[in-house]
Amino acid sequence: MSDLIQSWLPSANTPEAEFPLNNLPYGVFSVDDGDLRCGVAIGDRIVDVTGLEAAGHLRADPDADVLDAPFWNDFMELGPDVWHAYRLALTAILAQDASEEVQDLITTFSVPMAQATLHMPFKVAEYTDFYAGRHHATNVGTMFRGAENALPPNWLHMPIGYNGRASSVVVSGTDIRRPWGQLKAPDADTPTFAPSRRFDIELELGAIVGTPSDGPLTVDQADANIFGYVLLNDWSARDIQAWEYQPLGPFQAKATATTISPWIVTAAALKPFRTATPPREVPLLPHLADTTPMNHDISLRVSLNGEDIAHTNANELYYSSAQQLAHHATAGSPMRTGDLLGTGTISGPERQNRGSLLELSWGGKEPLETQSGPRTFIEDGDTLALHGAAKGDGYQIGFGPCVGKVLPALDDPFQT
Amino acid sequence: MSDLIQSWLPSANTPEAEFPLNNLPYGVFSVDDGDLRCGVAIGDRIVDVTGLEAAGHLRADPDADVLDAPFWNDFMELGPDVWHAYRLALTAILAQDASEEVQDLITTFSVPMAQATLHMPFKVAEYTDFYAGRHHATNVGTMFRGAENALPPNWLHMPIGYNGRASSVVVSGTDIRRPWGQLKAPDADTPTFAPSRRFDIELELGAIVGTPSDGPLTVDQADANIFGYVLLNDWSARDIQAWEYQPLGPFQAKATATTISPWIVTAAALKPFRTATPPREVPLLPHLADTTPMNHDISLRVSLNGEDIAHTNANELYYSSAQQLAHHATAGSPMRTGDLLGTGTISGPERQNRGSLLELSWGGKEPLETQSGPRTFIEDGDTLALHGAAKGDGYQIGFGPCVGKVLPALDDPFQT
Repeated sequence: MSDLIQSWLPSANTPEAEFPLNNLPYGVFSVDDGDLRCGVAIGDRIVDVTGLEAAGHLRADPDADVLDAPFWNDFMELGPDVWHAYRLALTAILAQDASEEVQDLITTFSVPMAQATLHMPFKVAEYTDFYAGRHHATNVGTMFRGAENALPPNWLHMPIGYNGRASSVVVSGTDIRRPWGQLKAPDADTPTFAPSRRFDIELELGAIVGTPSDGPLTVDQADANIFGYVLLNDWSARDIQAWEYQPLGPFQAKATATTISPWIVTAAALKPFRTATPPREVPLLPHLADTTPMNHDISLRVSLNGEDIAHTNANELYYSSAQQLAHHATAGSPMRTGDLLGTGTISGPERQNRGSLLELSWGGKEPLETQSGPRTFIEDGDTLALHGAAKGDGYQIGFGPCVGKVLPALDDPFQT
Repeated sequence: MSDLIQSWLPSANTPEAEFPLNNLPYGVFSVDDGDLRCGVAIGDRIVDVTGLEAAGHLRADPDADVLDAPFWNDFMELGPDVWHAYRLALTAILAQDASEEVQDLITTFSVPMAQATLHMPFKVAEYTDFYAGRHHATNVGTMFRGAENALPPNWLHMPIGYNGRASSVVVSGTDIRRPWGQLKAPDADTPTFAPSRRFDIELELGAIVGTPSDGPLTVDQADANIFGYVLLNDWSARDIQAWEYQPLGPFQAKATATTISPWIVTAAALKPFRTATPPREVPLLPHLADTTPMNHDISLRVSLNGEDIAHTNANELYYSSAQQLAHHATAGSPMRTGDLLGTGTISGPERQNRGSLLELSWGGKEPLETQSGPRTFIEDGDTLALHGAAKGDGYQIGFGPCVGKVLPALDDPFQT
């Protein structure tokens, strides 16, 4: 018995559809050179919810045009009751038993996805990146500090993270320019200024804060404040990072770009895929302890120039996004609508489950054999893509791809 | 011969005035429960430039009310030519030879500073904190890693920095709540969750990006993009930091609050105080090298409950804010109007020149004798203030105080 919810739109009703009625992710689109509008993906179409709102239909707020903007932030600020009611309303008008009148209206206010350009679905207030994948932290720690000191002492007690750069977050499809930076070979006396030679990806999930807060949050409160999730590729210059990161952490190594997938997959759509975090070696302090399952069973893949090179699952995360957000608010920092929390690289136990080229090529020492040739790190012209889907019975919740092509470094970075 | 520019407002014409006509800093104020408005400080008054703009006077942009907002961001976005023209116009209407008609108009559109409440002068786009004071880095490094490894190897080659949390930046006068966090004593097996016991200040300057950019910047370009400066206190929980900062840098230790002084002192007002960075032990790579003097001769003081406990000078910074901004943009990150770049703690060579209690009490081992009793770190109820002034011939460029009172930690952080 399939759990697929049938729509009157046939393209939404196949087991392979990324955007069945069970999903209903939120994005921003344009057609030709038109305005940016908020849209909801269903099958092979995008419903123009900005247009519907302006025409008096599907109004999230009776008093304000919250979708009359090229981002979902104003909608997210309305809070969980509105999120829930809006999803119910969307489901009703797209379900199989919707009236012909409704179907005609939605057909008028929708466009084929193939004709649309997708944009950033929300304004990133601030961007934080965690380090919550145990296999990744262990792999990187083993390479940098040896197997015995692989995990830092704090790692099993709290989700380690750092603040990233919100202005560098871009939507899938944006080309990525290889950065210049300070590099120093271990045997060199002084650094040089050169294009990064060890440019890499990081396969992550990103959680988006919907409800703002001002003070410490319990894990349950944090979970309730998360609006949805995207795939996230935190482009990383490993050679810049190696030279700069002590003692204050990564900075320019992570400043070039972070790519997100174009559709916000809501926490509501992912609810059937909730699963526990992995077994804990040491108990967490009570303020971070697991309450109910808050990880997600989401299959994840990395492809290089169209060829799959790794696959893993979001259930590998040692800390859920809710635990990350709770930790983030511990010291009293206000959290805002549109805050983006990257999970950190999600690797699995085996070589083929690793979410970065650093791990896949073991620091460049064990090149990965691919159809594009042997790879240690990214080469100019490479296209890297992340894919993700939560797989249910007879349906899936897709994220849409998270893609970037890497362009050569500028000849002279100061002539831009 | 004094360099003070005479105003028709007598309170602006004394050598002790923080806000003579040479200064003209930009802030946001309200009176009673009225609207927040943009204001310019002169002597003991604030000129209501939002009101003037609405009345058709002193219009920065003929086509838009850029000051009809509780922040200066829209004005800053107009760029250096407008900044310059606006400063000239302000100078003309406040100078001694302004007509009586003009003086009457400005008197109408101004309020006594004593009656005003000051607010955040700009919307912080993103907040970055550097570590550009050599004495501070050396002191901290000596305490944590020993005198021989005090400066990290990268420190003399680039301004080390990390991204901070913009949502936690508050204006002078805001009370600061002592944070809870994970603490682990060196001899303990596991961490505990408790209020920070080593809560501290950091005496810094903050540079504000006026002109946005999208790609690498030369030091000269970066310098031209900086609109102005504020005093900045980066409240720091040393015990939270010690446990969390490896390997990704400070996070919750710096997330409680960062306080800034209420007036943006423009780069233009500070131009007569430009001075070189300290002598360099090793040359910088060309993209970061000094071109013209871009540090500032600004006297800085720290007071605890009204008693001066340290004094230093911004000319101690090893990297100018322009060099910090240039480094920040190296890897291609867009920089935006309203980005705030903290310099890092500015200490001088002697004990009385240290800009943090960590250094003043040498990690808590050498308590500081004060009129409020011996101090290692901040006690509940303490009021900490930073003061700054560039001292010219017969006048000074004051910043206004950067003050915060520390409140006790919450009894139960999850009942907020």
